[in-house]
Amino acid sequence: MAESMVGIKRSHRCTEVTTANIGQDVTVMGWVQKSRNKGGIIFVDLRDRSGILQIIFEESDCGAENFAKAEKLRSEFVIAVTGRVEARSGAVNPNLATGAIEVRAKSMRVLSESETPPFPIEENSKTKEELRLKYRFLDLRRPDLQRNMMVRSRVATLTRAFLADEGFLEIETPTLIKSTPEGARDYLVPSRVHPGSFYALPQSPQLFKQLLMCSGYDRYFQIARCYRDEDLRADRQPEFTQIDMELSFVDVDEVLDVNERLLQKLFKEICDYDLPLPLPRMTWQEAMDRFGSDKPDLRFGMELQDVSDVVKGCEFAVFKNALENGGSVRGINAEGQGHMPRKKIDALVEYAKGFGAKGLAYVAINEDGSLKSSFAKFMTEEEMGALVAAMGGKPGDLLLFAADRNKVVYDVLGNLRLELARQLDLLKKDDFKFLWVTEFPLLEYSEEEGRFVAMHHPFTMPMDEDLQYIDSDPGRVRAKAYDIVLNGVEMGGGSVRIHQGDVQSKMFEVLGFTPERANDQFGFLLEAFKYGVPPHAGLAYGFDRMVMLMVGADSIRDVIAFPKVKDASCLMTEAPTPVDPAQLKELGIEVAETEEE
Amino acid sequence: MAESMVGIKRSHRCTEVTTANIGQDVTVMGWVQKSRNKGGIIFVDLRDRSGILQIIFEESDCGAENFAKAEKLRSEFVIAVTGRVEARSGAVNPNLATGAIEVRAKSMRVLSESETPPFPIEENSKTKEELRLKYRFLDLRRPDLQRNMMVRSRVATLTRAFLADEGFLEIETPTLIKSTPEGARDYLVPSRVHPGSFYALPQSPQLFKQLLMCSGYDRYFQIARCYRDEDLRADRQPEFTQIDMELSFVDVDEVLDVNERLLQKLFKEICDYDLPLPLPRMTWQEAMDRFGSDKPDLRFGMELQDVSDVVKGCEFAVFKNALENGGSVRGINAEGQGHMPRKKIDALVEYAKGFGAKGLAYVAINEDGSLKSSFAKFMTEEEMGALVAAMGGKPGDLLLFAADRNKVVYDVLGNLRLELARQLDLLKKDDFKFLWVTEFPLLEYSEEEGRFVAMHHPFTMPMDEDLQYIDSDPGRVRAKAYDIVLNGVEMGGGSVRIHQGDVQSKMFEVLGFTPERANDQFGFLLEAFKYGVPPHAGLAYGFDRMVMLMVGADSIRDVIAFPKVKDASCLMTEAPTPVDPAQLKELGIEVAETEEE
Repeated sequence: MAESMVGIKRSHRCTEVTTANIGQDVTVMGWVQKSRNKGGIIFVDLRDRSGILQIIFEESDCGAENFAKAEKLRSEFVIAVTGRVEARSGAVNPNLATGAIEVRAKSMRVLSESETPPFPIEENSKTKEELRLKYRFLDLRRPDLQRNMMVRSRVATLTRAFLADEGFLEIETPTLIKSTPEGARDYLVPSRVHPGSFYALPQSPQLFKQLLMCSGYDRYFQIARCYRDEDLRADRQPEFTQIDMELSFVDVDEVLDVNERLLQKLFKEICDYDLPLPLPRMTWQEAMDRFGSDKPDLRFGMELQDVSDVVKGCEFAVFKNALENGGSVRGINAEGQGHMPRKKIDALVEYAKGFGAKGLAYVAINEDGSLKSSFAKFMTEEEMGALVAAMGGKPGDLLLFAADRNKVVYDVLGNLRLELARQLDLLKKDDFKFLWVTEFPLLEYSEEEGRFVAMHHPFTMPMDEDLQYIDSDPGRVRAKAYDIVLNGVEMGGGSVRIHQGDVQSKMFEVLGFTPERANDQFGFLLEAFKYGVPPHAGLAYGFDRMVMLMVGADSIRDVIAFPKVKDASCLMTEAPTPVDPAQLKELGIEVAETEEE
Repeated sequence: MAESMVGIKRSHRCTEVTTANIGQDVTVMGWVQKSRNKGGIIFVDLRDRSGILQIIFEESDCGAENFAKAEKLRSEFVIAVTGRVEARSGAVNPNLATGAIEVRAKSMRVLSESETPPFPIEENSKTKEELRLKYRFLDLRRPDLQRNMMVRSRVATLTRAFLADEGFLEIETPTLIKSTPEGARDYLVPSRVHPGSFYALPQSPQLFKQLLMCSGYDRYFQIARCYRDEDLRADRQPEFTQIDMELSFVDVDEVLDVNERLLQKLFKEICDYDLPLPLPRMTWQEAMDRFGSDKPDLRFGMELQDVSDVVKGCEFAVFKNALENGGSVRGINAEGQGHMPRKKIDALVEYAKGFGAKGLAYVAINEDGSLKSSFAKFMTEEEMGALVAAMGGKPGDLLLFAADRNKVVYDVLGNLRLELARQLDLLKKDDFKFLWVTEFPLLEYSEEEGRFVAMHHPFTMPMDEDLQYIDSDPGRVRAKAYDIVLNGVEMGGGSVRIHQGDVQSKMFEVLGFTPERANDQFGFLLEAFKYGVPPHAGLAYGFDRMVMLMVGADSIRDVIAFPKVKDASCLMTEAPTPVDPAQLKELGIEVAETEEE
């Protein structure tokens, strides 16, 4: 049965007890990691969030009653122990912070017993994730998850302190807001007071932070919960956290500068990594041309080469058709992979097809300089020689080519490059390669919707020199938008915002909004724009992703205390659940009848 | 038309320019507070969040073009000005931080024009709140609201830094959770992936923070958004913010200690108020007996006196009946108010009736010692004398009595005491009287539901010595619960939690939960309690209220950037709104047909 802790006080966390305390009495409390009786001495590894401390019970020290209790200890019992700190009698354990000491118990209380947990509490658990998520309260006891949560807390603390020092105000924006569907789906919240009306949960604080700039707050930040009702992919959660900021009276450079210094501080303090500033910048176009991606992983080379000019005269139909249809032919050189077996190359071709490629042309350069190629028969020897030369091909290299519309070529080779890097183990988790990607296209044409849509969002400022094309050639207009990319992951992004009512109206027009619809959805912003708006710009980080990268976790679920799984449910609480019909009635809504099919 | 800020950079905020900058060129940016042309010199008060700086334009300095632009400036235009800092040529303005200087403009850009705002941007606005909330983006420009937001940000920063230093980890808990209705109504969120199922928005992170203690996080905090779908009273918002914390291996004293030190730090840094520690403590019973309230305002006396024993023999039916029905007769002495006109006393009687009093008995003691009383005719002279003596009545005093069930007597006199203090202007906003109220009843009987309900929540630990009465006399059991009260406002509260599965099950039983229902709603917590739970306790502050008290605001709306009004709507965005039927269809819900009545 549980004993009370009335009358005793903890003096130290487990690893706060050090050799400096030898000879002193301490009171420690925590969980039994393990307990064993060795020749009449009971050894207990006591665990708290700080780590492990060894306790020893001998009947001559602690008396018969305490010893009897100690004999019954099992894993995950919660105990309080008072005892004397001693130099360890047995072998010093160099793997433990407290490996040179132990506490000789004088008294002990069992604060809480435990059934046998459904899986052991240990690092790098082999238990399948579903079971661990069902018992998340136990999973969260594992030291690796505890370290992740502590890092997350520390990153938040450091970020807030840094931004406060830089003159940012932390301002909370509402989360029961108006639904302004554009982009992902909103989560909706029915209103009881206004039946038939709904709030939305925010996809981001975007509009409110812009209003705060209109209101003169100058520099705003918030570590804000955001919501997107998307079909969940591996690294998405229905609710996620952003480090969100907005600055007035700035252009691109000031935003990037303050964020580089923030990142430098965080990666120094958390990862002990010295980040040289300024961070490299690359335009979106250059990133696509060199890496086939707007979030290039710079931890390795294997850059894309445009060989369209080299192959433009050849008779290989795949290349010819791509070029005739306005596309391109590009390749990557997987250096030293010329020996790759046909079966593995075929697997790469299949992989490429997953990204829209019709196929993948390759040239393996044998060690003797001879070529093995899927398309040599359609090319002259000179053409092949020129192609290999253009790719910098050396004996032992493998050249892989895609020929298609540019978008497909980028996508195929960009992903192929990453797949090869994974296969070749080029992606080191403790290497941090940062990059700003800038000058994104303002708009992208959506075949699906038959109109231009905003690449970032409708409030992004066109580049001054491109504004002239917004009517005649909207696809050509670049935006004052930027992403911060780390190791191939988009960690954050933002833009300078439109602060002129007329430009904002033009933007809505280009996006196909009627003035009525623009007004219905964003009327309050357009209204605010009538009363003196400062130039402003901002940025938001995916906080979960940032912490994931810092701790080297494989999933954001490992840096979120109570994550949801792919179907947006919580395996521990079983949310979402049906609710009492009386609750729905009060809200004025009904569950729709399921149609029989 | 708006000019760009490309090529210029702000050098200072307005009040960062000081006499130390005299002779230097600065570039400042902000809003035109006012602009006037006085004899060919244009004076502009430029405003940003830091304050006001005077700019002067003379054509000879800034050239004809800039001067012409300056002539057209109107309130709320956003401008950037570069100029030379000078000692002020006119009279020094001691009310301005920058009152001794001005900036002589050399160049100016109009970054944004403004229409005439619907109300002036000024302190202590006389504009009615509805209009200000509709144009909240303008209202938020007012210096008093800006100060409130800056204090709020600072309180959050200080709180986080303090708690981090004390070993608290900031851990985010989910906000799309399982609905566990108990207490206030949940806001619900329909699930698209699981049609017919709903998430709830959390009323507090209670269960999750207790699970974090089960998981060994030891000390947790979060500045957490919470949601209650209540009928809104003056000082409630559908979403509000809590400073939420939980600690393991502690009892009441440790929680109170760390929070006293937090409060001391906050009130010193924000209000320059020295808070002497330890703060006073008072049991719930004493607070009710002395002040008729579980959140007594200690800025003034006027304590309740129980005169039941004094009047128990008298024939006044009102007193007699109250005592016979197990109630009490209590009074307060409004010292020096014996001259209060009958009309005002009658108004007090009406006020008292609003809290359930059937009437209010009074005795005015004239300066000559004679009595004027509503019930003297039912009492002997001796009885009256004893009553006045028991109340400490002196010539010139007004004694007011309530006789009823204790609950009504407390409520009537507690509120009457406050009403008198308001009338007598005894409530100073810069006086901070803190109090811990402890030992709350664990349960209160709900006549409405015909059962005991938890006074705090079902996870509150009974006091060790009272646990024995939980079956035989549940109303007698006191809880290890505590509220922190400031100037009559409950600023926060918490409790030691039950950490024993058997006690928790017993508690659910006393609250009338079937085991099935307890399991359905809180099964994951009961499950967690099987695997080793540390003793734990916590506390949460109403953050909005705390800031309101610190800045002396009258409403929490004045410390929330974008508040909602009483019907839970936002006057600026008009949320909540009807949504696209396609959105509802995807969510599998329908708006219920309104019944015609």
